[in-house]
Amino acid sequence: MSTGPIRLSQGAHTALRPATAARITGGFWAARRRVNAEVSVSQGPDRLERAGNLANLRAAAGPAPAESGFRGDFPFQDSDVHKWLEAASWQLAAGGEGPAEDELAWQVERLTGLVAAAQAEDGYLQTYYQLGPDARRWAEPHWGHELYCAGHLLQAAVAHHRATGADGLLDVAVRCADLVDATFGPGKNETVCGHPEMETALVELYRETGERRYLDLAGYFVDRRGQGSLGDGPAEGSPGPRPGAPYWQDHIPVREATAVAGHAVRQLYLLAGAADVAAETGDAGLRDALVRLWEDMATTKTYLTGGVGSRHELESFGDAYELPPDRAYAETCAAIAAIHFGWRMALLTGEARYSDLVERTLFNGFASGVSIDGERWLYVNPLQVRQDDESRKDATSDRSAHRTPWFRCACCPPNVMRLLASLPHYMASGDAQGLQLHQYASGSYEAGGGAVRVGTGYPWEGRIAVVVDTAPQDTDWTLSLRIPHWATAYEATVGGEPVAERAQNGWLRLRRRWRPGETVVLSLSLDPRLTRPDPRADGVRGCAAIERGPLVYCLEQPDQPAGLRLDDIALDPDATLSAEHRPELLGGVTVITSLALRHAVARDGWWPYRDGGAGSGGGTRPGVEAGGVEALDPVPVTAIPYYAWANREPGAMRVWTPLQPLTG
Amino acid sequence: MSTGPIRLSQGAHTALRPATAARITGGFWAARRRVNAEVSVSQGPDRLERAGNLANLRAAAGPAPAESGFRGDFPFQDSDVHKWLEAASWQLAAGGEGPAEDELAWQVERLTGLVAAAQAEDGYLQTYYQLGPDARRWAEPHWGHELYCAGHLLQAAVAHHRATGADGLLDVAVRCADLVDATFGPGKNETVCGHPEMETALVELYRETGERRYLDLAGYFVDRRGQGSLGDGPAEGSPGPRPGAPYWQDHIPVREATAVAGHAVRQLYLLAGAADVAAETGDAGLRDALVRLWEDMATTKTYLTGGVGSRHELESFGDAYELPPDRAYAETCAAIAAIHFGWRMALLTGEARYSDLVERTLFNGFASGVSIDGERWLYVNPLQVRQDDESRKDATSDRSAHRTPWFRCACCPPNVMRLLASLPHYMASGDAQGLQLHQYASGSYEAGGGAVRVGTGYPWEGRIAVVVDTAPQDTDWTLSLRIPHWATAYEATVGGEPVAERAQNGWLRLRRRWRPGETVVLSLSLDPRLTRPDPRADGVRGCAAIERGPLVYCLEQPDQPAGLRLDDIALDPDATLSAEHRPELLGGVTVITSLALRHAVARDGWWPYRDGGAGSGGGTRPGVEAGGVEALDPVPVTAIPYYAWANREPGAMRVWTPLQPLTG
Repeated sequence: MSTGPIRLSQGAHTALRPATAARITGGFWAARRRVNAEVSVSQGPDRLERAGNLANLRAAAGPAPAESGFRGDFPFQDSDVHKWLEAASWQLAAGGEGPAEDELAWQVERLTGLVAAAQAEDGYLQTYYQLGPDARRWAEPHWGHELYCAGHLLQAAVAHHRATGADGLLDVAVRCADLVDATFGPGKNETVCGHPEMETALVELYRETGERRYLDLAGYFVDRRGQGSLGDGPAEGSPGPRPGAPYWQDHIPVREATAVAGHAVRQLYLLAGAADVAAETGDAGLRDALVRLWEDMATTKTYLTGGVGSRHELESFGDAYELPPDRAYAETCAAIAAIHFGWRMALLTGEARYSDLVERTLFNGFASGVSIDGERWLYVNPLQVRQDDESRKDATSDRSAHRTPWFRCACCPPNVMRLLASLPHYMASGDAQGLQLHQYASGSYEAGGGAVRVGTGYPWEGRIAVVVDTAPQDTDWTLSLRIPHWATAYEATVGGEPVAERAQNGWLRLRRRWRPGETVVLSLSLDPRLTRPDPRADGVRGCAAIERGPLVYCLEQPDQPAGLRLDDIALDPDATLSAEHRPELLGGVTVITSLALRHAVARDGWWPYRDGGAGSGGGTRPGVEAGGVEALDPVPVTAIPYYAWANREPGAMRVWTPLQPLTG
Repeated sequence: MSTGPIRLSQGAHTALRPATAARITGGFWAARRRVNAEVSVSQGPDRLERAGNLANLRAAAGPAPAESGFRGDFPFQDSDVHKWLEAASWQLAAGGEGPAEDELAWQVERLTGLVAAAQAEDGYLQTYYQLGPDARRWAEPHWGHELYCAGHLLQAAVAHHRATGADGLLDVAVRCADLVDATFGPGKNETVCGHPEMETALVELYRETGERRYLDLAGYFVDRRGQGSLGDGPAEGSPGPRPGAPYWQDHIPVREATAVAGHAVRQLYLLAGAADVAAETGDAGLRDALVRLWEDMATTKTYLTGGVGSRHELESFGDAYELPPDRAYAETCAAIAAIHFGWRMALLTGEARYSDLVERTLFNGFASGVSIDGERWLYVNPLQVRQDDESRKDATSDRSAHRTPWFRCACCPPNVMRLLASLPHYMASGDAQGLQLHQYASGSYEAGGGAVRVGTGYPWEGRIAVVVDTAPQDTDWTLSLRIPHWATAYEATVGGEPVAERAQNGWLRLRRRWRPGETVVLSLSLDPRLTRPDPRADGVRGCAAIERGPLVYCLEQPDQPAGLRLDDIALDPDATLSAEHRPELLGGVTVITSLALRHAVARDGWWPYRDGGAGSGGGTRPGVEAGGVEALDPVPVTAIPYYAWANREPGAMRVWTPLQPLTG
């Protein structure tokens, strides 16, 4: 069976179903998953011990929990443990042998035991409240994160059950879910949690246990939002921004919403959960709302990297086309949440565009969240860091453009771990007609009554070979290959012969009788390209970005000629973009070189604005060129994939670069 | 004597000294000051009553203060009262007669009495702590705002003393300052306050009382910052941004700093106080640091409107050239603080550039803070509001682009009131050679041994007539007129004859023997102009703004043709800019009309980025124009002065507009 989080019920109302088996065996993602397993997941228990998370569990299990001090700054610290357990379980499910695997299994059982021991008799489990007065339980829905933590517990338990077949953690989750079900609902506690997450988790627990109450409760929570049970929330004592209803996702019912808004992770966890509900119930009204909200997000509020959440303030979505590159928040967790949401929409609708965006987010705004060595993390993923960015110097802030070994608010690292550990799940799907390949990674995939093996050097190389190992022998069967939305040119062959089919709506569907072992070769053109933004995107007007295949590129200081200031250059749109693979650089990347035009800004005095334009009062002062800049010699610049930035000494970086002529 | 806050000691080490008398009698600022007096200041006591500030004072004066509840969300609520008292005192000092004046004097004495009654026996006065456990006093330097509130009390007392001659509030302030002096200093409490303000206030109290201890304590506080007495501050329980040392202005000593940083109001209150210390001590090292910091601010971190503080997050300065128009914070209080700082630097150095920036900030980023009718306020002053900006709909947030009658955190309204009430103070100065006119407003000014009267329709008209009423009769005397940095053309006459002198470093210095009544006429060209930003300002690349004289203009929805979306237009750089005065509009404004080019964005599908540029992989898809936009007919657009925006129904607004061709 599939090793991923979505195991649809038999009666689920989706266009596609996840692969029943999926393994990634080589290439880009295999390498990232190996680092994830050997470094990130492996170091997890030690990180959690140092941050106090495990001490909290031990204290809650002890004789006088209410008198023990809680360690950490946030009520949701337990969820870091749950997410690590989920990641480690998916890792175990993916298989492997040897001492490392034994050590991981031992750690999983150890932490599972700590979690189980910490659970209260009535099923309650959140050490922040267990180590404080009982009266606060369920009383602080805005900041308490109680259902959020419970949701991550449920997800960990489902993963653990699927990976090991053991019931221990699943029993803990069921007791917790039953307590929640007894506590919340019509006529009971009718508030929702300030942070969505329980919705998707309850649907997963329903799928794992068959207990319909959990699905019903998930549907209740989805529809209860926007009814004002949280409202604007409590006033804070500092003059900082005050979270309002959009922050808590209580400003409008999901069914009525037309725009993604508020806290990005909260919004997208909620939409992922709503998609799970729609998948299991066939609720067409809910599905239509989700399509509308995804379109609003993708079309007006998504960075080129797939990152979402434009504002540092309240970690929130901004207005349409508010996509500043420098102050992009684009939290790593929001990228993960967007992938969760997008994959569910791909299954629900069968449309390729959802997986187009999932691919973009995976390779860029998600992959940037963890260092090449798997030891350090980014919470925020900006698209530009200026030469003199002060935040680079503040290595202690969760929010700096600086990778750190762990965060005070450590939601992102175990979230990255669990997505990488379950990544095979996102590659392929099946339906009555056949198998769909959504993402390209060397490996083997079973779905839709067939099985294929993929071999590819993607994303560095555009050639993808798919061997059809198993297909129905007595009838036509369809292998569907997603043609990425960036691919303006591609070729496909079956058994060496060009195919006549062309992609429609992003799917190249090859329907035929297949001989076992027959090979399909898809070749995607990977010419480097310049990309321009929508003219309404104020933050990057007049700029272009370099892309190649699914990868967004950036210019980072260490790759440029000494002394070149990235703040003072423009891309030459007529210069050739040349790709070269460098196996020794940053774990092996293809770089792109081009020419940039340096300019010295001609400004006299202290004021950074000047007369300009040809309006009646405009005109340029004598001695200053139009545009106020003086062009110097072109210089070579080298771009690296965005995901690989911030792995060397701190320095300037930019994805978007002005194009000549500078109209500044 | 002058009715403003800076009354230098006899031995002060400044290039210039404030005018000894200054009155604004007509024109733009007289009208704004009249609304301030008749509406804003007049309504103040009622606003303070409703917000609970006065109840807090009464409770603190009552028999059991520690048991009474504090009203309001913030420890600094008392400062709103102090700032109102300062504003009302300057208003009384400016003179006037009739029932309104009597009412104002009565209210001032009433609130002064409340403040005096609330003071504890030892001189302590902050109701937030008086209405709570005593043990918390001076124990919460980060958020407590105790010296901040004390500073505003001192400033109110100085204003009250100058305005009325009465000692009552000054005695309260002296007792408070003596308590602070006994509590803080080397070997005593060596922390500084999380919010600077006390520094400038102590210098003012020194000037008013002659007590040198206050100046010394101010100098101590200035130099104590950056020594780590506050450090990063307390952790907060929410995952929001955590203020660090720059927020508290404790990251670097002022003398060593090379860049303005951290919370904008805190930074600039500190620099204004440091300038006061330098003025009184002649400390050249401190002065040099202040020059350097002002240049950093003006050259790299100031909006076209003079607004400062680029980030909503922590209300802080951003990086150099981080000046997004949409998410500009540009708090009204920060504009006021920049004016305080700039005026002190003008006096300290005698240089015109400081008053250049003061003028720009006054007419734009400051004046926008209060509505035309004086009843509603803006906390943040963005340079762009999109068509679909969600924040416009949230009239309850202090931070929305929506004027409200008062704020939860109400620092800005009484701050605007006190600056408008003391505005004559910022117009002129004197030195041994004569008198300098820094700002142009109809009125009378005495300084440098002479007296002048100014008559002008500025900023709507560029003609400024200055009658020299008094000047030394036996020697040459210099009338210095600031030629604004935006004025590329000007003419000046004395007695109708063109002068031979030309401005140097922003000052047109007319040195001669003056006959009483002799008239100087300065004519500044007010042709509307297009202004372009520094090419490093990423947020407004490819855009231009309309300006005329000292005024920055904006396009606001109500003035445009029906259905025109401001998000979808470009300015035509070849179109004429035509000025027309409309006395009936927005209290009387000169509007500027021009032509804009509408465009429909040609985009297929859901992704807002597209192939573009002529790079090797670039090129434009067939059927889509270069730039991806389709030009439609030009349409007339009308710009209004920026300060007058947000006085009608909510709608889109923009200061910066893309120029054709749209390279987006």
